[in-house]
Amino acid sequence: MKEAKNIVFLAKSLDNFIAGPEGELDWLDMIANPDGDDMGYFALIEEIDAIVMGRKSFEKVLSFGIEWPYKKPVFVLSRTLNHLPENLENRVFLLKGSIEKILSQLHEKGHKVLYIDGGQTTRSFLQADRIDELRITTLPIILGNGIPLFDVLSNRLTFEHIKTEVFLGQLVQSHYKRKDVDIPEGLHSSDS
Amino acid sequence: MKEAKNIVFLAKSLDNFIAGPEGELDWLDMIANPDGDDMGYFALIEEIDAIVMGRKSFEKVLSFGIEWPYKKPVFVLSRTLNHLPENLENRVFLLKGSIEKILSQLHEKGHKVLYIDGGQTTRSFLQADRIDELRITTLPIILGNGIPLFDVLSNRLTFEHIKTEVFLGQLVQSHYKRKDVDIPEGLHSSDS
Repeated sequence: MKEAKNIVFLAKSLDNFIAGPEGELDWLDMIANPDGDDMGYFALIEEIDAIVMGRKSFEKVLSFGIEWPYKKPVFVLSRTLNHLPENLENRVFLLKGSIEKILSQLHEKGHKVLYIDGGQTTRSFLQADRIDELRITTLPIILGNGIPLFDVLSNRLTFEHIKTEVFLGQLVQSHYKRKDVDIPEGLHSSDS
Repeated sequence: MKEAKNIVFLAKSLDNFIAGPEGELDWLDMIANPDGDDMGYFALIEEIDAIVMGRKSFEKVLSFGIEWPYKKPVFVLSRTLNHLPENLENRVFLLKGSIEKILSQLHEKGHKVLYIDGGQTTRSFLQADRIDELRITTLPIILGNGIPLFDVLSNRLTFEHIKTEVFLGQLVQSHYKRKDVDIPEGLHSSDS
């Protein structure tokens, strides 16, 4: 049986913002990409069974006014949304409830390998320690402010570095896998 | 004449903390380093004329109770410190004032290439846009909380990626140089 796992695939600034304060994404295009390198995106989409994103990310994608870009089913987490655009029937689905409830519903449907997308959803999954893989691409810019990739957490989460690749000479993409055993929180600084 | 530049060389967690909430540094040893790879530290020390750090970092180094570890002159930024341990005479110096004043004093003394060390000092220099190079090593851990590498800034700062190297299979070190021209702040999200 395929092992269930939750993968984050995101681009961020050096200071770990995934968008500017008003959701600005213009800086994602700061490095020219003349040959349209997908930087691992299509391999990810092949690998996954479904995409999980929050309402804000979903509405952001809709706002682009482009053809629906996802080839795999998308599950939108929302307490408030009750219906979806008709043209997205059978492609987008609404889910609500705790992360554990959401995951068991998805796993029952056979959606084991999940692409966890968007800031709020990623942060919630990290809070619940339900992220198994991070695939994070760092752009060479300090945004100064914006929508953060990470929240304050009460526990340390230890990962294993799998690989790092530099795209277009400028974008550093690192893959990490969650480790089973964490380094305990040091109660004192290393000198004491 | 040698060009003046200010270099940051720091290790950080995935969530961009340089120490735990109480200054914990134990996690820096999470990856075994049996052959004592210096990860570019000695090359940096060769390259620089002096080290600039804040009072807290200075006191942290003193607290280690080891022999003074720096071969280059160390300038400690402090409004409150008025004297230094006697054994550090001619090796450690106190400085106060604005970053511009500090830099012109150091440059007059011939200290052109500076290693900017410690969280507060790094954040202040970034605020003043006086960091020319970032050499940042990311450890495969989310600390959840701690002393941040970056502050909120009112401007974007654009860098050029120079190189990325993986040490011990786990530590990702990237070098960046400040770019002269920044990407202007996007006032609106990319869709508008």
